[in-house]
Amino acid sequence: MIEEAAASGRVREIFDDIKRTKQIDFVPNFWKTLAAHPPLLEDTWQRLKRVMAPGALDARTKEMLAVAASSTNGCAYCINSHTAAAMRLGMTAEMYGELLEVVALFNATNTLADAFQVRPDVFP
Amino acid sequence: MIEEAAASGRVREIFDDIKRTKQIDFVPNFWKTLAAHPPLLEDTWQRLKRVMAPGALDARTKEMLAVAASSTNGCAYCINSHTAAAMRLGMTAEMYGELLEVVALFNATNTLADAFQVRPDVFP
Amino acid sequence: MIEEAAASGRVREIFDDIKRTKQIDFVPNFWKTLAAHPPLLEDTWQRLKRVMAPGALDARTKEMLAVAASSTNGCAYCINSHTAAAMRLGMTAEMYGELLEVVALFNATNTLADAFQVRPDVFP
Amino acid sequence: MIEEAAASGRVREIFDDIKRTKQIDFVPNFWKTLAAHPPLLEDTWQRLKRVMAPGALDARTKEMLAVAASSTNGCAYCINSHTAAAMRLGMTAEMYGELLEVVALFNATNTLADAFQVRPDVFP
Amino acid sequence: MIEEAAASGRVREIFDDIKRTKQIDFVPNFWKTLAAHPPLLEDTWQRLKRVMAPGALDARTKEMLAVAASSTNGCAYCINSHTAAAMRLGMTAEMYGELLEVVALFNATNTLADAFQVRPDVFP
Amino acid sequence: MIEEAAASGRVREIFDDIKRTKQIDFVPNFWKTLAAHPPLLEDTWQRLKRVMAPGALDARTKEMLAVAASSTNGCAYCINSHTAAAMRLGMTAEMYGELLEVVALFNATNTLADAFQVRPDVFP
Repeated sequence: MIEEAAASGRVREIFDDIKRTKQIDFVPNFWKTLAAHPPLLEDTWQRLKRVMAPGALDARTKEMLAVAASSTNGCAYCINSHTAAAMRLGMTAEMYGELLEVVALFNATNTLADAFQVRPDVFP
Repeated sequence: MIEEAAASGRVREIFDDIKRTKQIDFVPNFWKTLAAHPPLLEDTWQRLKRVMAPGALDARTKEMLAVAASSTNGCAYCINSHTAAAMRLGMTAEMYGELLEVVALFNATNTLADAFQVRPDVFP
Repeated sequence: MIEEAAASGRVREIFDDIKRTKQIDFVPNFWKTLAAHPPLLEDTWQRLKRVMAPGALDARTKEMLAVAASSTNGCAYCINSHTAAAMRLGMTAEMYGELLEVVALFNATNTLADAFQVRPDVFP
Repeated sequence: MIEEAAASGRVREIFDDIKRTKQIDFVPNFWKTLAAHPPLLEDTWQRLKRVMAPGALDARTKEMLAVAASSTNGCAYCINSHTAAAMRLGMTAEMYGELLEVVALFNATNTLADAFQVRPDVFP
Repeated sequence: MIEEAAASGRVREIFDDIKRTKQIDFVPNFWKTLAAHPPLLEDTWQRLKRVMAPGALDARTKEMLAVAASSTNGCAYCINSHTAAAMRLGMTAEMYGELLEVVALFNATNTLADAFQVRPDVFP
Repeated sequence: MIEEAAASGRVREIFDDIKRTKQIDFVPNFWKTLAAHPPLLEDTWQRLKRVMAPGALDARTKEMLAVAASSTNGCAYCINSHTAAAMRLGMTAEMYGELLEVVALFNATNTLADAFQVRPDVFP
């Protein structure tokens, strides 16, 4: 992990951009860890910044989709950070409860559809 | 698979409820397959109906979360049917492209966070 | 894929052992495929034969555990073949329905436990 | 997490039902966590209670299937609690060893079947 | 899917770059599919081109790692295309057999390590 | 967990073989845990020893494939131990960064290929 105080050059610029873009006053451990591999840091951050910018979907919906993917994968760090980010963008406890209900339900029905090897529907 | 013509009693009632609730005029193969195990059909449908009803999150956002979970799991039938459902509820091709960008990105960063065993951030 | 007619030497012996052990009169595609890599065939078959032999658990329970793992992984070939094997060993349609209910349910609760990052219980 | 002392109304009733049904004298953390989202608690508990009741499969086999699914998913909390539950229902250390052998073996063969893209067998 | 004949502007440039870089004379279906979402095509291709270029690891090792990840995920299209690419770069049938042995083995031991909740070793 | 001091007979022989083969002076926790189920210890160790021996692929490439599979599965213990093993065999920090870039990238593209249900290419 590269601490903020130890960052220089391009890594420092990206650290500053992360704090500015996310409006937080610390660099999350994920980015400090990637900083040990600068091309991975550069590429991941540029891509995340572009993908998470509001577009046809708003920023909060995008963070909620990130929580859905991270919960399905069971990635503890990711669930933590995306839940925090979605809440900063206005996700309420009630919305979070519903989000997890949906994700848990479809992890169950995905298993059933795979297990029964259901043929795709031909939509009329 | 129990075909519609062969359904009777409680299974027929659920088939009718599925078509009415989803506003479609056929019973998808998933439900015809579950009908071979009536308690599984009853339980899965009642739960799905309750969970997918609009609440703190609207119906389209819920279907998009279902696409996110199904894509992360790689469940072909589920991706197919939830994408169709989300589109019926107004998801555009552009929204779909952004949804998949978000999900693909976080499947990548989940791997990195797991691989580097990043310690959770303590939010200031 | 190495067809039965083309098998000779050690591969033929293993093919014969597979048919005798499983009491079937054909070699499943999985084993014909592994036969292109003889050490992989030898090792996988010897291990499967040892692990699936009745012990503290009977053969049917073992095949049902194989269905549970394969359904959770969404592996179509594996679900197919282990379901057929479990049925040859006496698994009824009702038992199969219950098996899938259990597996689907815990794929849902696994997601919830991961998402909420529930701390392990200290059993009193 | 809603502690037992803080639970009232429907949540308290469900907490009591969990302790009575599972014959334990504390509420596991999983259920205390779900209690922050009462519809999720209600729905998950009712479903689990129905699905885990003995039927065509006995309660111990069902808990062992839960261990198989949870191990395949790598969900630490779930592995912990279902292993404890299966042991309370009579699973011995030897049975547990065999269970994990089966699950580990089929996580390996699932990968091979997927990787080699084995065509399903047509059962004669 | 955007066919080659229908591609123009930036999409056509990327299609040409894909054929030149991979030294193939057709555009794989994956890229024709992404072309319906141009920013996703642009971003995925630029990133793949950068990541797969020889560096501390040679191109064949990188394709073999791609086969390992795709096999673990059970993604049919991906297994297909990365196996073909690794073979064009010199992976023999014997190397492929060993690759799958390694990946299958560690999908089994991953399950065991998760199931037994093995504590990390402190390396002396 | 069976500690080294408590091991006797066949378990002790395997413990000694593990230390000799891996050229380490302690028995990793994974093997001490498996030792509670001797057939699982015997089988897993013999298989791992055979599979990881240099063949068409060298030992370092095999350990890197193990890191790729373990990262995709998100198995913390496994990532830890295979990364340490690959480094003992000469994997540099730069090679490790590239390895993770490749694995993360293909976890993203696997999701896209599954989600878009891309048809396999027919190679000309």
